[in-house]
Amino acid sequence: MKQERDTASKRSVIQAAIQLFNTKGFNGTSVRDIAGKADVNVALISYYFNGKKGLAEFLMTSFLEGYVKELEKVYQQLDARSARSCLAEAIERIMEYQYQNRQLARFVLREITFDSVLVREIMTTYLAREKYYFSKIFEVGFAREEFRPQSIDYIIMQMRGMLSMPFLQPQYILEVHHIQPNEHYFIERYTKQLNEWIERYICKTGIWEARPFVMNG
Amino acid sequence: MKQERDTASKRSVIQAAIQLFNTKGFNGTSVRDIAGKADVNVALISYYFNGKKGLAEFLMTSFLEGYVKELEKVYQQLDARSARSCLAEAIERIMEYQYQNRQLARFVLREITFDSVLVREIMTTYLAREKYYFSKIFEVGFAREEFRPQSIDYIIMQMRGMLSMPFLQPQYILEVHHIQPNEHYFIERYTKQLNEWIERYICKTGIWEARPFVMNG
Repeated sequence: MKQERDTASKRSVIQAAIQLFNTKGFNGTSVRDIAGKADVNVALISYYFNGKKGLAEFLMTSFLEGYVKELEKVYQQLDARSARSCLAEAIERIMEYQYQNRQLARFVLREITFDSVLVREIMTTYLAREKYYFSKIFEVGFAREEFRPQSIDYIIMQMRGMLSMPFLQPQYILEVHHIQPNEHYFIERYTKQLNEWIERYICKTGIWEARPFVMNG
Repeated sequence: MKQERDTASKRSVIQAAIQLFNTKGFNGTSVRDIAGKADVNVALISYYFNGKKGLAEFLMTSFLEGYVKELEKVYQQLDARSARSCLAEAIERIMEYQYQNRQLARFVLREITFDSVLVREIMTTYLAREKYYFSKIFEVGFAREEFRPQSIDYIIMQMRGMLSMPFLQPQYILEVHHIQPNEHYFIERYTKQLNEWIERYICKTGIWEARPFVMNG
Protein backbone atom coordinates (compact mmCIF):
# COMPACT_ATOMS: atom_id res chain seq x y z
CA MET A 1 0.00 0.00 0.00
CA LYS A 2 2.77 2.41 0.91
CA GLN A 3 4.69 1.39 -2.17
CA GLU A 4 1.71 2.18 -4.38
CA ARG A 5 1.42 5.61 -2.81
CA ASP A 6 5.15 6.11 -3.36
CA THR A 7 4.92 5.25 -7.04
CA ALA A 8 1.92 7.51 -7.49
CA SER A 9 3.61 10.50 -5.90
CA LYS A 10 6.82 9.82 -7.79
CA ARG A 11 4.82 9.82 -11.00
CA SER A 12 3.11 13.07 -10.15
CA VAL A 13 6.47 14.70 -9.41
CA ILE A 14 7.71 13.59 -12.83
CA GLN A 15 4.57 14.86 -14.58
CA ALA A 16 4.69 18.20 -12.77
CA ALA A 17 8.39 18.65 -13.47
CA ILE A 18 8.06 17.97 -17.20
CA GLN A 19 5.16 20.38 -17.51
CA LEU A 20 6.92 23.15 -15.62
CA PHE A 21 10.22 22.65 -17.47
CA ASN A 22 8.33 22.99 -20.76
CA THR A 23 6.74 26.28 -19.83
CA LYS A 24 9.20 27.99 -17.47
CA GLY A 25 12.38 26.16 -18.43
CA PHE A 26 14.62 24.11 -16.17
CA ASN A 27 16.33 27.11 -14.61
CA GLY A 28 13.09 29.00 -14.22
CA THR A 29 11.48 26.18 -12.23
CA SER A 30 12.15 25.70 -8.51
CA VAL A 31 11.84 22.49 -6.49
CA ARG A 32 9.10 24.32 -4.59
CA ASP A 33 7.17 24.89 -7.85
CA ILE A 34 7.37 21.20 -8.67
CA ALA A 35 6.36 20.09 -5.18
CA GLY A 36 3.45 22.53 -5.24
CA LYS A 37 2.16 21.37 -8.60
CA ALA A 38 2.61 17.69 -7.75
CA ASP A 39 1.05 18.25 -4.32
CA VAL A 40 3.89 16.55 -2.46
CA ASN A 41 6.33 17.63 0.22
CA VAL A 42 9.48 19.36 -1.03
CA ALA A 43 11.63 16.90 0.92
CA LEU A 44 10.22 14.03 -1.13
CA ILE A 45 11.90 15.38 -4.26
CA SER A 46 15.27 15.32 -2.52
CA TYR A 47 14.48 11.85 -1.26
CA TYR A 48 13.44 10.41 -4.60
CA PHE A 49 15.66 12.29 -7.02
CA ASN A 50 18.34 14.05 -5.03
CA GLY A 51 16.98 17.50 -5.96
CA LYS A 52 16.13 19.29 -9.17
CA LYS A 53 19.35 18.44 -11.02
CA GLY A 54 18.98 14.79 -10.13
CA LEU A 55 15.41 14.91 -11.37
CA ALA A 56 16.47 16.39 -14.71
CA GLU A 57 19.20 13.78 -15.02
CA PHE A 58 16.71 11.02 -14.26
CA LEU A 59 14.31 12.34 -16.90
CA MET A 60 17.00 12.66 -19.55
CA THR A 61 18.66 9.32 -18.99
CA SER A 62 15.45 7.33 -18.71
CA PHE A 63 14.12 8.92 -21.90
CA LEU A 64 17.34 8.29 -23.82
CA GLU A 65 17.76 4.79 -22.42
CA GLY A 66 14.41 3.83 -23.92
CA TYR A 67 15.20 5.71 -27.12
CA VAL A 68 18.45 3.82 -27.70
CA LYS A 69 16.74 0.49 -26.87
CA GLU A 70 14.37 1.02 -29.77
CA LEU A 71 17.34 1.32 -32.09
CA GLU A 72 19.05 -1.69 -30.56
CA LYS A 73 16.02 -3.88 -31.33
CA VAL A 74 16.34 -3.03 -35.01
CA TYR A 75 20.11 -3.37 -35.04
CA GLN A 76 19.78 -6.99 -33.92
CA GLN A 77 17.78 -7.83 -37.04
CA LEU A 78 20.27 -6.33 -39.44
CA ASP A 79 21.72 -9.67 -40.56
CA ALA A 80 18.35 -11.10 -41.46
CA ARG A 81 16.74 -8.16 -43.21
CA SER A 82 17.43 -5.45 -45.76
CA ALA A 83 19.14 -2.30 -44.51
CA ARG A 84 16.34 -0.32 -46.11
CA SER A 85 13.63 -2.01 -44.05
CA CYS A 86 15.79 -1.74 -40.91
CA LEU A 87 16.23 1.99 -41.40
CA ALA A 88 12.50 2.41 -42.01
CA GLU A 89 11.68 0.48 -38.85
CA ALA A 90 14.26 2.39 -36.81
CA ILE A 91 12.68 5.68 -37.85
CA GLU A 92 9.18 4.39 -37.21
CA ARG A 93 10.13 3.15 -33.74
CA ILE A 94 11.85 6.42 -32.82
CA MET A 95 8.88 8.49 -33.97
CA GLU A 96 6.47 6.28 -32.04
CA TYR A 97 8.63 6.28 -28.92
CA GLN A 98 8.93 10.04 -28.95
CA TYR A 99 5.21 10.37 -29.59
CA GLN A 100 4.38 8.17 -26.61
CA ASN A 101 6.66 10.35 -24.46
CA ARG A 102 6.17 13.63 -26.27
CA GLN A 103 6.22 16.03 -23.32
CA LEU A 104 9.38 14.40 -22.04
CA ALA A 105 10.88 14.30 -25.53
CA ARG A 106 10.35 18.01 -25.88
CA PHE A 107 12.15 18.68 -22.62
CA VAL A 108 15.08 16.39 -23.36
CA LEU A 109 15.52 17.55 -26.96
CA ARG A 110 15.53 21.15 -25.82
CA GLU A 111 17.84 20.48 -22.89
CA ILE A 112 20.53 18.95 -25.09
CA THR A 113 20.79 22.27 -26.95
CA PHE A 114 22.47 23.76 -23.86
CA ASP A 115 26.17 23.70 -23.04
CA SER A 116 26.59 21.82 -19.78
CA VAL A 117 28.57 19.01 -18.20
CA LEU A 118 25.49 16.81 -17.89
CA VAL A 119 24.65 17.32 -21.55
CA ARG A 120 28.22 16.48 -22.54
CA GLU A 121 28.09 13.25 -20.52
CA ILE A 122 24.78 12.30 -22.07
CA MET A 123 26.14 12.97 -25.55
CA THR A 124 29.08 10.69 -25.07
CA THR A 125 26.92 7.84 -23.83
CA TYR A 126 23.45 7.81 -25.34
CA LEU A 127 23.82 9.89 -28.48
CA ALA A 128 27.08 8.18 -29.37
CA ARG A 129 25.19 4.87 -29.12
CA GLU A 130 22.46 6.25 -31.33
CA LYS A 131 25.14 7.19 -33.85
CA TYR A 132 26.68 3.71 -33.54
CA TYR A 133 23.46 1.87 -34.38
CA PHE A 134 22.58 4.18 -37.24
CA SER A 135 26.12 3.91 -38.60
CA LYS A 136 25.89 0.13 -38.61
CA ILE A 137 22.65 0.23 -40.58
CA PHE A 138 24.23 2.59 -43.11
CA GLU A 139 27.44 0.60 -43.40
CA VAL A 140 25.47 -2.55 -44.16
CA GLY A 141 23.31 -0.60 -46.60
CA PHE A 142 26.42 0.63 -48.44
CA ALA A 143 28.07 -2.79 -48.44
CA ARG A 144 24.97 -4.45 -49.88
CA GLU A 145 24.62 -1.61 -52.38
CA GLU A 146 21.14 -0.81 -51.17
CA PHE A 147 22.14 2.77 -50.25
CA ARG A 148 24.03 5.17 -52.44
CA PRO A 149 27.40 6.23 -50.97
CA GLN A 150 27.35 9.29 -48.76
CA SER A 151 28.76 10.67 -45.52
CA ILE A 152 27.32 8.82 -42.54
CA ASP A 153 27.91 11.74 -40.19
CA TYR A 154 26.09 14.25 -42.36
CA ILE A 155 23.21 11.95 -43.07
CA ILE A 156 22.71 11.18 -39.36
CA MET A 157 22.77 14.90 -38.58
CA GLN A 158 20.15 15.63 -41.21
CA MET A 159 18.05 12.74 -39.91
CA ARG A 160 18.27 13.91 -36.31
CA GLY A 161 16.92 17.28 -37.41
CA MET A 162 13.94 15.65 -39.10
CA LEU A 163 13.30 13.19 -36.26
CA SER A 164 13.28 15.76 -33.48
CA MET A 165 11.44 18.59 -35.22
CA PRO A 166 7.84 17.42 -34.54
CA PHE A 167 8.57 17.08 -30.83
CA LEU A 168 10.67 20.21 -30.39
CA GLN A 169 8.25 22.52 -32.16
CA PRO A 170 4.68 21.32 -31.51
CA GLN A 171 3.45 24.87 -31.00
CA TYR A 172 4.87 25.90 -34.36
CA ILE A 173 3.04 23.01 -36.04
CA LEU A 174 -0.21 24.04 -34.39
CA GLU A 175 -0.02 27.82 -34.77
CA VAL A 176 1.56 28.10 -38.22
CA HIS A 177 0.39 24.94 -39.99
CA HIS A 178 -2.88 24.43 -38.09
CA ILE A 179 -2.08 20.75 -37.70
CA GLN A 180 -2.63 18.97 -34.39
CA PRO A 181 0.80 17.64 -33.34
CA ASN A 182 -0.74 15.59 -30.54
CA GLU A 183 -2.86 13.47 -32.84
CA HIS A 184 -1.39 10.15 -33.82
CA TYR A 185 -2.39 10.75 -37.41
CA PHE A 186 0.13 13.56 -37.62
CA ILE A 187 2.99 11.26 -36.64
CA GLU A 188 1.87 8.59 -39.09
CA ARG A 189 1.73 11.10 -41.91
CA TYR A 190 5.11 12.61 -41.00
CA THR A 191 6.70 9.15 -40.72
CA LYS A 192 5.32 8.24 -44.12
CA GLN A 193 7.16 11.22 -45.52
CA LEU A 194 10.39 10.08 -43.86
CA ASN A 195 9.87 6.73 -45.54
CA GLU A 196 9.71 8.47 -48.87
CA TRP A 197 12.93 10.20 -47.94
CA ILE A 198 14.57 6.81 -47.43
CA GLU A 199 13.36 5.63 -50.83
CA ARG A 200 14.27 8.69 -52.82
CA TYR A 201 17.25 10.07 -50.95
CA ILE A 202 19.02 7.21 -49.20
CA CYS A 203 18.43 4.27 -51.47
CA LYS A 204 20.36 3.66 -54.64
CA THR A 205 17.26 2.94 -56.65
CA GLY A 206 13.99 4.08 -55.26
CA ILE A 207 10.77 2.26 -56.03
CA TRP A 208 9.84 5.04 -58.44
CA GLU A 209 12.91 4.27 -60.54
CA ALA A 210 12.37 0.53 -60.60
CA ARG A 211 9.51 0.57 -63.10
CA PRO A 212 10.42 -1.39 -66.21
CA PHE A 213 11.24 0.59 -69.28
CA VAL A 214 8.67 -0.11 -72.00
CA MET A 215 9.39 0.53 -75.66
CA ASN A 216 6.55 1.35 -78.00
CA GLY A 217 6.51 -0.34 -81.36
CA MET B 1 31.21 60.35 -29.03
CA LYS B 2 28.45 59.59 -26.55
CA GLN B 3 26.48 57.78 -29.26
CA GLU B 4 29.44 55.56 -30.06
CA ARG B 5 29.76 54.64 -26.41
CA ASP B 6 26.03 53.92 -26.34
CA THR B 7 26.22 51.58 -29.30
CA ALA B 8 29.23 49.80 -27.88
CA SER B 9 27.60 49.16 -24.52
CA LYS B 10 24.35 48.15 -26.22
CA ARG B 11 26.30 45.63 -28.26
CA SER B 12 28.07 44.25 -25.22
CA VAL B 13 24.71 43.83 -23.44
CA ILE B 14 23.43 41.87 -26.44
CA GLN B 15 26.54 39.69 -26.60
CA ALA B 16 26.47 39.00 -22.87
CA ALA B 17 22.76 38.19 -22.90
CA ILE B 18 23.05 35.71 -25.78
CA GLN B 19 25.97 33.95 -24.14
CA LEU B 20 24.24 33.68 -20.78
CA PHE B 21 20.93 32.57 -22.29
CA ASN B 22 22.79 29.79 -24.12
CA THR B 23 24.41 28.45 -20.97
CA LYS B 24 21.97 29.23 -18.14
CA GLY B 25 18.77 29.63 -20.14
CA PHE B 26 16.55 32.71 -20.28
CA ASN B 27 14.88 32.04 -16.95
CA GLY B 28 18.14 31.14 -15.25
CA THR B 29 19.74 34.46 -16.22
CA SER B 30 19.10 37.65 -14.26
CA VAL B 31 19.42 41.23 -15.49
CA ARG B 32 22.18 41.57 -12.92
CA ASP B 33 24.11 38.66 -14.53
CA ILE B 34 23.86 40.34 -17.92
CA ALA B 35 24.91 43.75 -16.59
CA GLY B 36 27.84 42.14 -14.78
CA LYS B 37 29.08 40.25 -17.81
CA ALA B 38 28.62 43.23 -20.12
CA ASP B 39 30.20 45.53 -17.54
CA VAL B 40 27.37 48.07 -17.67
CA ASN B 41 24.98 49.50 -15.13
CA VAL B 42 21.82 47.44 -14.53
CA ALA B 43 19.69 50.51 -15.19
CA LEU B 44 21.05 50.71 -18.71
CA ILE B 45 19.34 47.42 -19.62
CA SER B 46 16.00 48.83 -18.54
CA TYR B 47 16.78 52.00 -20.44
CA TYR B 48 17.77 50.29 -23.68
CA PHE B 49 15.53 47.25 -23.71
CA ASN B 50 12.89 47.71 -21.07
CA GLY B 51 14.26 44.82 -18.98
CA LYS B 52 15.07 41.19 -19.62
CA LYS B 53 11.84 40.30 -21.40
CA GLY B 54 12.20 43.29 -23.67
CA LEU B 55 15.74 42.23 -24.42
CA ALA B 56 14.65 38.70 -25.36
CA GLU B 57 11.90 40.11 -27.54
CA PHE B 58 14.38 42.43 -29.23
CA LEU B 59 16.75 39.52 -29.91
CA MET B 60 14.04 37.28 -31.31
CA THR B 61 12.36 39.84 -33.53
CA SER B 62 15.58 41.27 -34.93
CA PHE B 63 16.87 37.78 -35.73
CA LEU B 64 13.63 36.70 -37.37
CA GLU B 65 13.20 39.99 -39.21
CA GLY B 66 16.53 39.40 -40.95
CA TYR B 67 15.71 35.73 -41.49
CA VAL B 68 12.44 36.48 -43.28
CA LYS B 69 14.13 39.22 -45.37
CA GLU B 70 16.48 36.61 -46.81
CA LEU B 71 13.49 34.63 -48.00
CA GLU B 72 11.77 37.72 -49.35
CA LYS B 73 14.76 38.48 -51.60
CA VAL B 74 14.42 35.08 -53.23
CA TYR B 75 10.65 35.29 -53.47
CA GLN B 76 10.97 38.44 -55.59
CA GLN B 77 12.93 36.53 -58.24
CA LEU B 78 10.42 33.73 -58.55
CA ASP B 79 8.95 34.95 -61.85
CA ALA B 80 12.30 35.14 -63.57
CA ARG B 81 13.90 31.92 -62.36
CA SER B 82 13.21 28.24 -61.85
CA ALA B 83 11.52 27.24 -58.59
CA ARG B 84 14.32 24.74 -58.09
CA SER B 85 17.03 27.39 -58.13
CA CYS B 86 14.92 29.68 -55.94
CA LEU B 87 14.50 26.96 -53.34
CA ALA B 88 18.22 26.21 -53.43
CA GLU B 89 19.07 29.87 -52.96
CA ALA B 90 16.51 30.27 -50.15
CA ILE B 91 18.10 27.39 -48.28
CA GLU B 92 21.60 28.67 -48.92
CA ARG B 93 20.70 32.16 -47.70
CA ILE B 94 19.00 30.84 -44.56
CA MET B 95 21.96 28.65 -43.71
CA GLU B 96 24.40 31.50 -44.23
CA TYR B 97 22.26 33.95 -42.25
CA GLN B 98 21.98 31.55 -39.35
CA TYR B 99 25.69 30.83 -39.53
CA GLN B 100 26.55 34.53 -39.38
CA ASN B 101 24.30 34.84 -36.32
CA ARG B 102 24.82 31.37 -34.90
CA GLN B 103 24.81 32.19 -31.18
CA LEU B 104 21.65 34.21 -31.59
CA ALA B 105 20.11 31.57 -33.85
CA ARG B 106 20.65 28.95 -31.19
CA PHE B 107 18.90 31.08 -28.59
CA VAL B 108 15.94 31.97 -30.82
CA LEU B 109 15.46 28.43 -32.15
CA ARG B 110 15.49 27.05 -28.64
CA GLU B 111 13.21 29.77 -27.29
CA ILE B 112 10.48 29.04 -29.84
CA THR B 113 10.21 25.51 -28.41
CA PHE B 114 8.57 26.98 -25.30
CA ASP B 115 4.88 27.70 -24.79
CA SER B 116 4.51 31.41 -24.19
CA VAL B 117 2.51 34.41 -25.36
CA LEU B 118 5.59 36.03 -26.91
CA VAL B 119 6.39 32.85 -28.83
CA ARG B 120 2.82 32.63 -30.06
CA GLU B 121 2.94 36.23 -31.31
CA ILE B 122 6.23 35.60 -33.07
CA MET B 123 4.83 32.46 -34.71
CA THR B 124 1.88 34.29 -36.16
CA THR B 125 4.04 37.03 -37.62
CA TYR B 126 7.51 35.85 -38.64
CA LEU B 127 7.10 32.11 -38.99
CA ALA B 128 3.82 32.52 -40.83
CA ARG B 129 5.69 34.78 -43.26
CA GLU B 130 8.40 32.16 -43.63
CA LYS B 131 5.71 29.63 -44.45
CA TYR B 132 4.15 32.05 -46.94
CA TYR B 133 7.35 32.53 -48.93
CA PHE B 134 8.21 28.85 -48.95
CA SER B 135 4.66 27.98 -49.97
CA LYS B 136 4.85 30.34 -52.93
CA ILE B 137 8.08 28.73 -54.12
CA PHE B 138 6.49 25.29 -53.85
CA GLU B 139 3.26 26.33 -55.55
CA VAL B 140 5.20 27.70 -58.50
CA GLY B 141 7.35 24.57 -58.54
CA PHE B 142 4.23 22.38 -58.70
CA ALA B 143 2.54 24.54 -61.35
CA ARG B 144 5.62 24.43 -63.57
CA GLU B 145 5.96 20.71 -62.95
CA GLU B 146 9.47 21.13 -61.59
CA PHE B 147 8.48 19.61 -58.24
CA ARG B 148 6.59 16.40 -57.69
CA PRO B 149 3.25 16.90 -55.91
CA GLN B 150 3.34 16.68 -52.14
CA SER B 151 1.96 18.36 -49.01
CA ILE B 152 3.43 21.84 -48.61
CA ASP B 153 2.87 21.84 -44.84
CA TYR B 154 4.69 18.58 -44.26
CA ILE B 155 7.56 19.45 -46.55
CA ILE B 156 8.09 22.81 -44.82
CA MET B 157 8.08 21.10 -41.43
CA GLN B 158 10.65 18.57 -42.55
CA MET B 159 12.76 21.37 -44.00
CA ARG B 160 12.58 23.46 -40.84
CA GLY B 161 13.93 20.48 -38.91
CA MET B 162 16.88 20.16 -41.28
CA LEU B 163 17.54 23.91 -41.43
CA SER B 164 17.61 24.47 -37.68
CA MET B 165 19.46 21.32 -36.59
CA PRO B 166 23.06 22.56 -37.11
CA PHE B 167 22.37 25.67 -35.04
CA LEU B 168 20.31 24.06 -32.31
CA GLN B 169 22.71 21.21 -31.64
CA PRO B 170 26.27 22.45 -32.20
CA GLN B 171 27.52 20.61 -29.14
CA TYR B 172 26.07 17.35 -30.43
CA ILE B 173 27.86 17.84 -33.76
CA LEU B 174 31.13 18.49 -31.96
CA GLU B 175 30.94 15.82 -29.25
CA VAL B 176 29.35 12.97 -31.18
CA HIS B 177 30.47 13.55 -34.75
CA HIS B 178 33.76 15.35 -34.00
CA ILE B 179 32.95 17.96 -36.60
CA GLN B 180 33.54 21.67 -35.91
CA PRO B 181 30.11 23.32 -36.27
CA ASN B 182 31.65 26.80 -36.13
CA GLU B 183 33.73 26.32 -39.25
CA HIS B 184 32.26 27.65 -42.42
CA TYR B 185 33.21 24.47 -44.22
CA PHE B 186 30.70 22.54 -42.15
CA ILE B 187 27.83 24.77 -43.27
CA GLU B 188 28.92 24.55 -46.90
CA ARG B 189 29.02 20.76 -46.72
CA TYR B 190 25.69 20.54 -44.93
CA THR B 191 24.07 22.93 -47.43
CA LYS B 192 25.41 20.86 -50.31
CA GLN B 193 23.57 17.90 -48.83
CA LEU B 194 20.36 19.93 -48.65
CA ASN B 195 20.82 20.72 -52.33
CA GLU B 196 20.98 17.03 -53.06
CA TRP B 197 17.78 16.68 -51.09
CA ILE B 198 16.11 19.22 -53.39
CA GLU B 199 17.29 17.30 -56.45
CA ARG B 200 16.36 13.83 -55.29
CA TYR B 201 13.42 14.44 -53.02
CA ILE B 202 11.66 17.62 -54.13
CA CYS B 203 12.20 17.67 -57.85
CA LYS B 204 10.22 15.61 -60.29
CA THR B 205 13.24 14.45 -62.18
CA GLY B 206 16.55 14.80 -60.46
CA ILE B 207 19.73 15.27 -62.45
CA TRP B 208 20.61 11.64 -61.83
CA GLU B 209 17.44 10.52 -63.59
CA ALA B 210 17.90 12.78 -66.59
CA ARG B 211 20.57 10.65 -68.28
CA PRO B 212 19.39 9.43 -71.68
CA PHE B 213 18.39 5.81 -71.98
CA VAL B 214 20.82 4.00 -74.30
CA MET B 215 19.86 0.77 -76.02
CA ASN B 216 22.54 -1.75 -76.90
CA GLY B 217 22.38 -3.39 -80.30
